[in-house]
Amino acid sequence: MSEVAVHIAGNRSTGERNSNEPPAFSTREQTTLKSALENLIPNDSALQTCAQHHFAQSGKMLRGQLALMTGDTLGISAHAALAWAMSVELMHNASLVHDDICDKDETRRGKASVWAAFGAPTAICFGDWLTAQSFAHAAQAEVASGTRGLVSMAAQAMADLSCSQAHEFRQMKYPDWKTYEQIVTGKTVPLLTAGILGTLSMTACVDTQINNAVDKTFAALGQAYQIANDIDNFTGDDGHENLNHDLANAAPNAVIIIFRDGLKNGSRLAFDAWLEDPARIGASHWRDRILQTDAVQHTTDQVSQRLVAAHKSARSLPEDLRQIIAPLYNYLLHTCTSMGAQATGHNFQ
Amino acid sequence: MSEVAVHIAGNRSTGERNSNEPPAFSTREQTTLKSALENLIPNDSALQTCAQHHFAQSGKMLRGQLALMTGDTLGISAHAALAWAMSVELMHNASLVHDDICDKDETRRGKASVWAAFGAPTAICFGDWLTAQSFAHAAQAEVASGTRGLVSMAAQAMADLSCSQAHEFRQMKYPDWKTYEQIVTGKTVPLLTAGILGTLSMTACVDTQINNAVDKTFAALGQAYQIANDIDNFTGDDGHENLNHDLANAAPNAVIIIFRDGLKNGSRLAFDAWLEDPARIGASHWRDRILQTDAVQHTTDQVSQRLVAAHKSARSLPEDLRQIIAPLYNYLLHTCTSMGAQATGHNFQ
Repeated sequence: MSEVAVHIAGNRSTGERNSNEPPAFSTREQTTLKSALENLIPNDSALQTCAQHHFAQSGKMLRGQLALMTGDTLGISAHAALAWAMSVELMHNASLVHDDICDKDETRRGKASVWAAFGAPTAICFGDWLTAQSFAHAAQAEVASGTRGLVSMAAQAMADLSCSQAHEFRQMKYPDWKTYEQIVTGKTVPLLTAGILGTLSMTACVDTQINNAVDKTFAALGQAYQIANDIDNFTGDDGHENLNHDLANAAPNAVIIIFRDGLKNGSRLAFDAWLEDPARIGASHWRDRILQTDAVQHTTDQVSQRLVAAHKSARSLPEDLRQIIAPLYNYLLHTCTSMGAQATGHNFQ
Repeated sequence: MSEVAVHIAGNRSTGERNSNEPPAFSTREQTTLKSALENLIPNDSALQTCAQHHFAQSGKMLRGQLALMTGDTLGISAHAALAWAMSVELMHNASLVHDDICDKDETRRGKASVWAAFGAPTAICFGDWLTAQSFAHAAQAEVASGTRGLVSMAAQAMADLSCSQAHEFRQMKYPDWKTYEQIVTGKTVPLLTAGILGTLSMTACVDTQINNAVDKTFAALGQAYQIANDIDNFTGDDGHENLNHDLANAAPNAVIIIFRDGLKNGSRLAFDAWLEDPARIGASHWRDRILQTDAVQHTTDQVSQRLVAAHKSARSLPEDLRQIIAPLYNYLLHTCTSMGAQATGHNFQ
């Protein structure tokens, strides 16, 4: 994978990069997606206001970018690739809007979440409108490419997401690592994989071996991505206004789970009692306790292990597809190295 | 239309019918749909429980029945017609589950609504799961019939539904008749029409004139259906546990709107003040006041007028399509006659 990383850096980087900054995702694809999202206007003034608020910070748009980059590499028509990229991005955003209501999460991308700003009923309708647009674009992608199966793929991803979300918030106990992995696999992997697999399905040649390799690679990268996001959330690098956000909300977070799984007897009981207390006073105390352990380091190791697994699976992919994975891989690699991946024993550079 | 009604009665009725009972919708189609819905099982135990609860009372399944009857009449493959019928039913149910959260409606089909029984977060996820299944079935219907356009039609209906729902609940004032008609046209008409138009689109011959006539006929029947449902809700015939349900919740209801539109000056101000008071004590008093006026009669007249309009539009439809409309038409006709349609001046029999 290291050669891919170097190759991509040569292709996409526009100059010297500060080694402390994460590798940039392609801004060309981001600009295309952002502009297309802004041109979608709901036929209702309240939902229009929601759309402006929500897409003012459009996020990394990783899923859509992966679809666009795959389409570019494989020579898919720009119209078809953009339609599918929009479909996965719109569905991802619909799930975020609804998940924030379920999880009572009041912030998203450093601003008020849609339900916090406009109320849960408007947010439910806005999520439904985004879902409708997602499927409209999946249908457009099928017509533009003359293929079938994209709508079914989007529907399967949405069914997986809604089941995983239902499973997550009704967990009575804070999840252990095994449960966390199941939740992440249901919530993060389907749409990340769909961006690439959907675009692949638009080519004449469908290769089961390649599909399986993409599946395995993205299962590993998707988990790594979610775990890395959790580390960012815990250490306060993700722009969340409240430090300790996941901790204060007792939201499943890889760092907290690894810390909790390492506690024994009375310590575990004391931490669980704190997590289960709705008041949850003193998050800073527990944050300090967690930072005194090697929980962040062990969580970073989990990202590293998944990068190794992704590297291994990606070997059976054609070179051009490996290139598509490189920006995401490099971003995760940067997360690991900046968090002390030298201690993991894997030298990715 | 009267000849159609008689014709259908001869085709579908299985014996003598008490003239006080509404004409039965076909039970064959209902049984097929109910069984297919029960076979859909979410991959999450909480959502499974939701599905069992929600579909224990599956409702009239009017939209799905219209699709199945159209498919039968036009010789569409049973698999394709059922897939599309399921798609519109699943989307209708998804919108009910989400709308009940938005409207804080605690009962549905005489039982606790999903959010009242399982909480809003689970209900949001269940609605999303139903939406995913709806689009999966629309895609199946496209493949089974070798056509395109059903997914786009479902997506357009969902976009219309979510915009209308957002518009409805954030109305600060109780709607007047004009606003009510707009809301109903957005919320009831799209999926009723989609059941028939989607199935029509699966035939080789698409006839714009027929599509327009179906559109106009169902715009009229859809409004008539919603207004008739509102009369049932107001008079307590719809199985809602709480009499005065819409009144007590200040929910838009055709009878209440016609009563309110007829009030002048101080009376209107007094009623508006009561509607806007969250406590809304004394719904029975206002119900009695409304029943002392001719509001129910005038509302029934609105149903009658739309039946006349539907009758007129349906004249340009082929006989076999007119037959499909007859059961719904007869049901609405019964609603009118049992509510005193003799006073409307239209003799539908």
